[in-house]
Amino acid sequence: MQQERPFDLLNKVTGQKVFIRLKNNVSIRGRMSSFDAHMNIVLEDAEELDGGDLKAKLGTILLRGGNIIFISPA
Amino acid sequence: MQQERPFDLLNKVTGQKVFIRLKNNVSIRGRMSSFDAHMNIVLEDAEELDGGDLKAKLGTILLRGGNIIFISPA
Amino acid sequence: MQQERPFDLLNKVTGQKVFIRLKNNVSIRGRMSSFDAHMNIVLEDAEELDGGDLKAKLGTILLRGGNIIFISPA
Amino acid sequence: MQQERPFDLLNKVTGQKVFIRLKNNVSIRGRMSSFDAHMNIVLEDAEELDGGDLKAKLGTILLRGGNIIFISPA
Amino acid sequence: MQQERPFDLLNKVTGQKVFIRLKNNVSIRGRMSSFDAHMNIVLEDAEELDGGDLKAKLGTILLRGGNIIFISPA
Amino acid sequence: MQQERPFDLLNKVTGQKVFIRLKNNVSIRGRMSSFDAHMNIVLEDAEELDGGDLKAKLGTILLRGGNIIFISPA
Amino acid sequence: MQQERPFDLLNKVTGQKVFIRLKNNVSIRGRMSSFDAHMNIVLEDAEELDGGDLKAKLGTILLRGGNIIFISPA
Repeated sequence: MQQERPFDLLNKVTGQKVFIRLKNNVSIRGRMSSFDAHMNIVLEDAEELDGGDLKAKLGTILLRGGNIIFISPA
Repeated sequence: MQQERPFDLLNKVTGQKVFIRLKNNVSIRGRMSSFDAHMNIVLEDAEELDGGDLKAKLGTILLRGGNIIFISPA
Repeated sequence: MQQERPFDLLNKVTGQKVFIRLKNNVSIRGRMSSFDAHMNIVLEDAEELDGGDLKAKLGTILLRGGNIIFISPA
Repeated sequence: MQQERPFDLLNKVTGQKVFIRLKNNVSIRGRMSSFDAHMNIVLEDAEELDGGDLKAKLGTILLRGGNIIFISPA
Repeated sequence: MQQERPFDLLNKVTGQKVFIRLKNNVSIRGRMSSFDAHMNIVLEDAEELDGGDLKAKLGTILLRGGNIIFISPA
Repeated sequence: MQQERPFDLLNKVTGQKVFIRLKNNVSIRGRMSSFDAHMNIVLEDAEELDGGDLKAKLGTILLRGGNIIFISPA
Repeated sequence: MQQERPFDLLNKVTGQKVFIRLKNNVSIRGRMSSFDAHMNIVLEDAEELDGGDLKAKLGTILLRGGNIIFISPA
């Protein structure tokens, strides 16, 4: 049996909604359509959240991995 | 079928208008004419935005990828 | 006898509860299900803590290693 | 036809006046005489700007690429 | 005679008590059980200190090297 | 004809007085006696400046390149 | 004749007293017993200074190179 690795989670949630906490206290929610080895991530229908409230609709975004604290299936 | 990767989005939006959120709370809008593997990006007719308002016309700029939080088709 | 290395601790606590202190003064608790060489970590049933109090239930998260100050068996 | 890359802009503006926005809220203007792969840049007759106003004449400077947000033909 | 190198100190203090000053103004004391080339360090019976006073008992921790200012035999 | 590169400026000013602006708002002046590929620099008779005023005589110093914003012939 | 390089200064001051300015406004003085290519440095009889005043006796310390602004023979 092969050992699980953190990026397996990214494979599993591709095509699904995710919640992403960023370093600058911003959170973003959207459907993950792709990722790469730097954790750069494309989200569709992305929304910026302030606390739990919608702050801005962002549409499709390419998010640089270096800004991410954590990613979670939404 | 080949898997999509985040940089495919940059290929798709080359020649089109993009919105870029930077780390220092600045946002920039412009037409993307080129990018490289570090996400360095050249924008034509770039404009610096403060909230939704135009703050400064920047013309052509070469933006260092390390300053970027996300890029979005405008 | 082979020398112990810090990542041996991560192997030992895989499947167990861990406490993680992050750089932005946030702490997270959860069951570690996987990690990689960058100390990226997947936690199940993750909880964000403020001081010792529960602040938010996060569920499954993939945490980027670069945000971590220390990890401890909980 | 070969694809344009961001550093092509640096080649084009070599010998010309450029405007450079730095991370620490400082802007610099000068004639670019050389650059390298790290975006280290030599400017002649460089001037430090505060808003649009001249703050200091710097003469020839070697600017480390890591401090740059964007470069623009002036 | 071979020249001493800084990591020789880490070898010497393995199994002994060390004091570690971190970047975020936190200090930690504990018995070092292992380290690696990134200066990631496992401490047993770790204690967080505020000034000279005990702030929290942390038990066993894996500390990421990038947060360290200095390490000292305690 | 070979293209000029930014480090050519460092070669030219070796043995001469330079002015260096650092990231933490400190400026240093001194005679550059050597440099390497990381822009680490040795200065002789170095002086720390606050605005234009002498703040401290530092003597010979080895300055880490990563702290530098720009270097200029003084 | 071989060109001098910045690390030659570290070789020269090994075994001697040095003054080290760190990024977090702390200064440290001590006798340098070893260094490596990352500028990690071991100091004996290290003292933390606040302005010119002794703040704490640190004894032997291994200082991570990344925290250093400059090193100077004391």
